[in-house]
Amino acid sequence: MTLFGARLSRLEPGLVHIELPFRADLCQQNGYLHAGISTTIADSAGGYAALSLFEPGEDVLTSEFKMNFLSPADGERFVATGRVLKPGRRLSICQVEVHAYRGDQPTLCVVGLMTAVRVQPR
Amino acid sequence: MTLFGARLSRLEPGLVHIELPFRADLCQQNGYLHAGISTTIADSAGGYAALSLFEPGEDVLTSEFKMNFLSPADGERFVATGRVLKPGRRLSICQVEVHAYRGDQPTLCVVGLMTAVRVQPR
Amino acid sequence: MTLFGARLSRLEPGLVHIELPFRADLCQQNGYLHAGISTTIADSAGGYAALSLFEPGEDVLTSEFKMNFLSPADGERFVATGRVLKPGRRLSICQVEVHAYRGDQPTLCVVGLMTAVRVQPR
Amino acid sequence: MTLFGARLSRLEPGLVHIELPFRADLCQQNGYLHAGISTTIADSAGGYAALSLFEPGEDVLTSEFKMNFLSPADGERFVATGRVLKPGRRLSICQVEVHAYRGDQPTLCVVGLMTAVRVQPR
Repeated sequence: MTLFGARLSRLEPGLVHIELPFRADLCQQNGYLHAGISTTIADSAGGYAALSLFEPGEDVLTSEFKMNFLSPADGERFVATGRVLKPGRRLSICQVEVHAYRGDQPTLCVVGLMTAVRVQPR
Repeated sequence: MTLFGARLSRLEPGLVHIELPFRADLCQQNGYLHAGISTTIADSAGGYAALSLFEPGEDVLTSEFKMNFLSPADGERFVATGRVLKPGRRLSICQVEVHAYRGDQPTLCVVGLMTAVRVQPR
Repeated sequence: MTLFGARLSRLEPGLVHIELPFRADLCQQNGYLHAGISTTIADSAGGYAALSLFEPGEDVLTSEFKMNFLSPADGERFVATGRVLKPGRRLSICQVEVHAYRGDQPTLCVVGLMTAVRVQPR
Repeated sequence: MTLFGARLSRLEPGLVHIELPFRADLCQQNGYLHAGISTTIADSAGGYAALSLFEPGEDVLTSEFKMNFLSPADGERFVATGRVLKPGRRLSICQVEVHAYRGDQPTLCVVGLMTAVRVQPR
């Protein structure tokens, strides 16, 4: 996250936003954010959303995710959203999205589902 | 890819390997490669594998992928494999994997499926 | 669909509901609707939602889907919802859900994403 | 499974085959096996493969799966394969496939990944 220049821009129980300003070196040949990068911020948003409902000291791991790329991630900044659909004792299912912003105009670029695993403190 | 220090280490029709040496700044708090990074190299390996079967001038886009994280990506280097299961006129389905290497010992860390879209030259 | 006793209960452009009454022979050993059956109605709802935005004579095929099973499908009837997130010339991305109803009380059992392919008439 | 006429045709630790003879009422308008049905037998094969490595009395639940449909399921019989890629204390990751057979000639129709959850006896 530090590597990419992303930051947590919203944090509520079960809901997290992560914002990433445009950076040319995170883009593909065509100037769109690389699918791997949008996935990384989406995964992080989902993981933090799950973590926000855990007990202190517990940690989170991603078990799996699936992403659909709907539109080119063409914007000045990108906002990843993670929302817990189903919190669980072991597994939490989260919906994740990435919107690209040009001014105030969002475009939905990525939609995904992920499974986050609760990890007990040692 | 340049950002991460990854390189193409094998390229055959329908089969691509991408190798990434360990870098601390690509890892999570626990020293394992971040899921977003292993996904990025897996996605790239799958995309190049599809591209390797296209006509000159054609380009590739990722429509969707799904990744399962089997083991912590704990190693000195990481090798992503992309293999075309079903080439298509429009859509190519690829299997992708990431192994972490400690010496010569590989551990399967990520397995995934992706859909690559053939893009015609303008 | 006829085999299962399911029926289309709502049809709008880009939005479809399919309803399935409880049937013991569609359930697992524990009395919950089989994951394959809830997937079948979810896939059908997504496919019809995509189809509802196509031109007359065009057909739809499922390229891929991913389903997360959030809760046991324990109910008197089941409603699958398909909604087009992104209509496309070739590919349409749909979100699908299945709720189990006990009386008027819905429980979200399945959430998924699918890619529907537009098929031209011959 | 009984509803569909499917049967277990191979059972080894971590590897299961399920065979389904052609039945017109399990097919779509075009005579191909419905994606929901091929998914059902693939899911069952993966679940049994995971179960085959569990302790006596333990049960299995599907947490999630993802299926890619590579070719129309056009055949006289269909064989679903489930193979455990990574057995786990809680979660087992399985690769699943469905081949359609015309005589002895198999065609790979479906490839998927699934997460099976170990359920302790009560």
